[in-house]
Amino acid sequence: MKKVAVIMGSDSDLPVVLGAVEKLKSFGISYEIRVISAHRTPEAAEEFGRKAIERGFGVIIAAAGKAAHLAGVIAAYTTLPVIGLPIKSTFMDGLDSLLSMVQMPAGIPVAVVAVGGAENAGILAAQILALSEPDLAKKLAVFKRSMAEEYAAKDRKMQSESF
Amino acid sequence: MKKVAVIMGSDSDLPVVLGAVEKLKSFGISYEIRVISAHRTPEAAEEFGRKAIERGFGVIIAAAGKAAHLAGVIAAYTTLPVIGLPIKSTFMDGLDSLLSMVQMPAGIPVAVVAVGGAENAGILAAQILALSEPDLAKKLAVFKRSMAEEYAAKDRKMQSESF
Amino acid sequence: MKKVAVIMGSDSDLPVVLGAVEKLKSFGISYEIRVISAHRTPEAAEEFGRKAIERGFGVIIAAAGKAAHLAGVIAAYTTLPVIGLPIKSTFMDGLDSLLSMVQMPAGIPVAVVAVGGAENAGILAAQILALSEPDLAKKLAVFKRSMAEEYAAKDRKMQSESF
Amino acid sequence: MKKVAVIMGSDSDLPVVLGAVEKLKSFGISYEIRVISAHRTPEAAEEFGRKAIERGFGVIIAAAGKAAHLAGVIAAYTTLPVIGLPIKSTFMDGLDSLLSMVQMPAGIPVAVVAVGGAENAGILAAQILALSEPDLAKKLAVFKRSMAEEYAAKDRKMQSESF
Amino acid sequence: MKKVAVIMGSDSDLPVVLGAVEKLKSFGISYEIRVISAHRTPEAAEEFGRKAIERGFGVIIAAAGKAAHLAGVIAAYTTLPVIGLPIKSTFMDGLDSLLSMVQMPAGIPVAVVAVGGAENAGILAAQILALSEPDLAKKLAVFKRSMAEEYAAKDRKMQSESF
Amino acid sequence: MKKVAVIMGSDSDLPVVLGAVEKLKSFGISYEIRVISAHRTPEAAEEFGRKAIERGFGVIIAAAGKAAHLAGVIAAYTTLPVIGLPIKSTFMDGLDSLLSMVQMPAGIPVAVVAVGGAENAGILAAQILALSEPDLAKKLAVFKRSMAEEYAAKDRKMQSESF
Amino acid sequence: MKKVAVIMGSDSDLPVVLGAVEKLKSFGISYEIRVISAHRTPEAAEEFGRKAIERGFGVIIAAAGKAAHLAGVIAAYTTLPVIGLPIKSTFMDGLDSLLSMVQMPAGIPVAVVAVGGAENAGILAAQILALSEPDLAKKLAVFKRSMAEEYAAKDRKMQSESF
Amino acid sequence: MKKVAVIMGSDSDLPVVLGAVEKLKSFGISYEIRVISAHRTPEAAEEFGRKAIERGFGVIIAAAGKAAHLAGVIAAYTTLPVIGLPIKSTFMDGLDSLLSMVQMPAGIPVAVVAVGGAENAGILAAQILALSEPDLAKKLAVFKRSMAEEYAAKDRKMQSESF
Repeated sequence: MKKVAVIMGSDSDLPVVLGAVEKLKSFGISYEIRVISAHRTPEAAEEFGRKAIERGFGVIIAAAGKAAHLAGVIAAYTTLPVIGLPIKSTFMDGLDSLLSMVQMPAGIPVAVVAVGGAENAGILAAQILALSEPDLAKKLAVFKRSMAEEYAAKDRKMQSESF
Repeated sequence: MKKVAVIMGSDSDLPVVLGAVEKLKSFGISYEIRVISAHRTPEAAEEFGRKAIERGFGVIIAAAGKAAHLAGVIAAYTTLPVIGLPIKSTFMDGLDSLLSMVQMPAGIPVAVVAVGGAENAGILAAQILALSEPDLAKKLAVFKRSMAEEYAAKDRKMQSESF
Repeated sequence: MKKVAVIMGSDSDLPVVLGAVEKLKSFGISYEIRVISAHRTPEAAEEFGRKAIERGFGVIIAAAGKAAHLAGVIAAYTTLPVIGLPIKSTFMDGLDSLLSMVQMPAGIPVAVVAVGGAENAGILAAQILALSEPDLAKKLAVFKRSMAEEYAAKDRKMQSESF
Repeated sequence: MKKVAVIMGSDSDLPVVLGAVEKLKSFGISYEIRVISAHRTPEAAEEFGRKAIERGFGVIIAAAGKAAHLAGVIAAYTTLPVIGLPIKSTFMDGLDSLLSMVQMPAGIPVAVVAVGGAENAGILAAQILALSEPDLAKKLAVFKRSMAEEYAAKDRKMQSESF
Repeated sequence: MKKVAVIMGSDSDLPVVLGAVEKLKSFGISYEIRVISAHRTPEAAEEFGRKAIERGFGVIIAAAGKAAHLAGVIAAYTTLPVIGLPIKSTFMDGLDSLLSMVQMPAGIPVAVVAVGGAENAGILAAQILALSEPDLAKKLAVFKRSMAEEYAAKDRKMQSESF
Repeated sequence: MKKVAVIMGSDSDLPVVLGAVEKLKSFGISYEIRVISAHRTPEAAEEFGRKAIERGFGVIIAAAGKAAHLAGVIAAYTTLPVIGLPIKSTFMDGLDSLLSMVQMPAGIPVAVVAVGGAENAGILAAQILALSEPDLAKKLAVFKRSMAEEYAAKDRKMQSESF
Repeated sequence: MKKVAVIMGSDSDLPVVLGAVEKLKSFGISYEIRVISAHRTPEAAEEFGRKAIERGFGVIIAAAGKAAHLAGVIAAYTTLPVIGLPIKSTFMDGLDSLLSMVQMPAGIPVAVVAVGGAENAGILAAQILALSEPDLAKKLAVFKRSMAEEYAAKDRKMQSESF
Repeated sequence: MKKVAVIMGSDSDLPVVLGAVEKLKSFGISYEIRVISAHRTPEAAEEFGRKAIERGFGVIIAAAGKAAHLAGVIAAYTTLPVIGLPIKSTFMDGLDSLLSMVQMPAGIPVAVVAVGGAENAGILAAQILALSEPDLAKKLAVFKRSMAEEYAAKDRKMQSESF
């Protein structure tokens, strides 16, 4: 199975990003965690993008905040699907991060999830890989069912309580 | 090769959505175009989501505007990657469409592209399918190079002109 | 008298939602509290919507945050009035929740109250039921008068103090 | 059956407001159309609110734009459900109208629909009245089915075309 | 000299509002502090507006948050200048309060100061009264000079320090 | 009676500003119309502010767009009440103009009306001057009544029509 | 004198960008106009950034819209001052362009002017170069004076007209 | 080498502003720190702007919040490049500060960095001065390389850890 790269623009993003990593682990997906800044280490971003396919990656998750160029810059160098994970900044809860990621010009898509939606970035990566990995597809189906069951249990519990 | 579903919440979205369809066609990807409303025909949304895998789809593009629930509602019924294409509404240029799509809760990801970014929705779908389709991957690389060459030509032309 | 359903998208919304429940209790209205997620348990949402009338409900309060599809999804399955209660999210104080609820397309209304306006959701439900319940209408009139008196007392107190 | 009041803050809102009126007519609901300004004719607003119940109204639709106080001001004088219809202003597509209507303080609810969502204001009024009007409830169910059928037809047509 | 009314929509606004009161006191202006809600005690708002002139008021400061109708509602009943003081709400730092106050329709002005700008509300009231009160005008000039001197002193201190 | 200054930051603002001038004329208030830019002719702004009182002005209306510093800059040089009229810019319908004017720091108030609310700027100026001009106060009362009557007539007309 | 580079992300930005070019011409500054896309031709962006100093540039103006990464990407490769010119997009009048440019992380500044503020981008470039070019500094002073005179003439004309 | 002025609108901005000062110190640039308010001490702003060139300044950093006129007001009096540093206010995280600074009208540019981006204000000032100071240019290149190395080290560390 192809690997997933989890790249963050700053090591301070790690606590959020781990939400994606945990999901990947739970699905048995190999991953590589990197700190690459579109602005401080642009050569690393370029090199990573250029070699991502040959190095065996299938999906790249790029997490960044503020003027969040990381996902777009990496997408400029690869045809792999790049998932953009906007990090909540100190300005309007990450509206800057979100718009910097999602409003990509025609030709270079980035697949953006919610601000701080690390878990979903991991699940989306799994869904993409699962297209050619039947076992992973099964795990996703199980995950979906167990999530539904967890919520159904919460619903039953809520109905059994009195307020 | 798996098919791509292109679903719009209203047939008035067709002119925008065709930008995605054209990209799919240019890459030789089979597609099905549907009008399904999360609110007017919710059963159709449910049925489409439930059977999408067995019907041979690999990616679902869901285009909707305003309180744009379509992508999320379909994602609720499938583990396929769902690409959300926010349609520009008459309110704040589609800020409602964008936030309704991108701010999905943990567990059910939607991969959102720019407001009105239909072409990128099509390319992203191709990038996802290309992970297990080497020929498609080549087409994407060619597309990327030709886009770069087109821009380089524009740059040369610009430098040759005088202002 | 018809019952009111109070549905939340996540059990973490309970502390807010209880503001609506308390109002319903104070007016002597029967209610049922549920945890139903438009995305994790969509079948439960569908089933609830479909059977709400025959199960004796008159109004449905749906509380959800972020990409808050719950109210719209339930409204898709019933002709009962659905009150949308946007939960304050971690993004722009719930602008995402508000727009996801209020910008419903033509044909499927949701009656939206303020972000976090749980008490008003409960009062609005009572106002709707009161149209065919004279006793409830009287309670609402009493509530309105006592609220006015409470404020008049605050005003008198303020005037009697010196700053 | 109780009547519906359709009040607009300015007669320039009439073209939008007629979307609500048409819905009321299609459901056979009696209505009264008024021009009442919270700021230019506040006494009329007060008088309307005070006498709305005894004059046989069941629901009040209040349409206004900019600093849209109309719905709140009328709600201050009645316990009837008041539906707020924010009119699209020239400022941020009616964000001012929306927030002025929806962010009501605890105690005085307004049931807000989408900016410019006149049709939904009419349907919501019908849904509220239908709680005690079985015939109206049937009409709403028919309306919902025909809307679904209309969309299903659009979907079939879309599938039959080639792009 | 005419008096200034300082009206707040909720007694919880008092800590902010006192910033205006303090300014009035420092200028020797008489004032009356009231709690009047446009929605809970609309008759009080009407009565206050109607009688403000004959009761000797020259300026009315109206402080309110969220769907902040107070200033507009009082302005509807008087031709006195009404200063709107938007209170910071829990939604987007009071964007709702600001827009609800400032976007008044033609014919009924409200003079709006910054969100939470209580001190400026008090100064503005003084500036208005000072047009026919030479002594007050002198106090304002003194205040302006002393504020300038205070800042000049801060500037000198800053230049004398080393960083 | 004191005069009103109507200052605009750019002569392109004239069509909007005339809305204020017309109101002043209708109330018989003398005025002076100026083009002064806080950034291009700052000395003129300073000089105007410094001499406004001795030149017989009672109120200054300052209209500007984008980074709208004009009102604040003039207010820095005078203790007269300064009314800020935010001009609708090409960016977010004048959100920049509005915030640049209304968010003044403590000590230097600007009395801000709606974006493009020229008519209200004129009325507000009249309300301020009317505090010491009984005749003007009467004209304002007449204006208010005639506006109310105009709306009442619209209401009667609306009720007499059939839709 | 060092040259100024005027780089646009898309040749469709040319009409706006020419506003900067004209300013440069009027000050006698040499310039080079380029079409370089951070996403379509990232190598060109990198190469331009790396060689900008040795090729004789002193300032780089980068104009881009939507997820406007161009200025940041070039700034990543040079220590020259980079002026960001946000192009008005179809989304919220370029709020996306503005935030993508201005919210740069610590270490890599971009000097951002107004959305669509091409003329100011040109003037700012001139101001920067003028620090070591006395003749250019004189031209800027002349420009400033003539702009002031132009506005003073508009002011005189306005005062001479009657409205 | 020319000096840099670091001006803040309020001494409460000092903790943020020191981020710029530290950068200037690290590059060996002389600076002067001032507290000048566009509104409280406008004469000081004017005087500073007028004499900045002859006093040996090359760049002016102006930090201000809310209706942040400081940078524009100083730019009105000088042809030196003025860097605007928007201070995070209590309203929408400084959206008011940002728009008040960046949306300058044609003719008077301000070079705006991120909200709270003090470090970048200092670096940008250094980049501007470095155009005629080869030693400073070298220091900037070293700074850029060491920043890259710091991030590369973080990347290596991240890769060596296990999560």
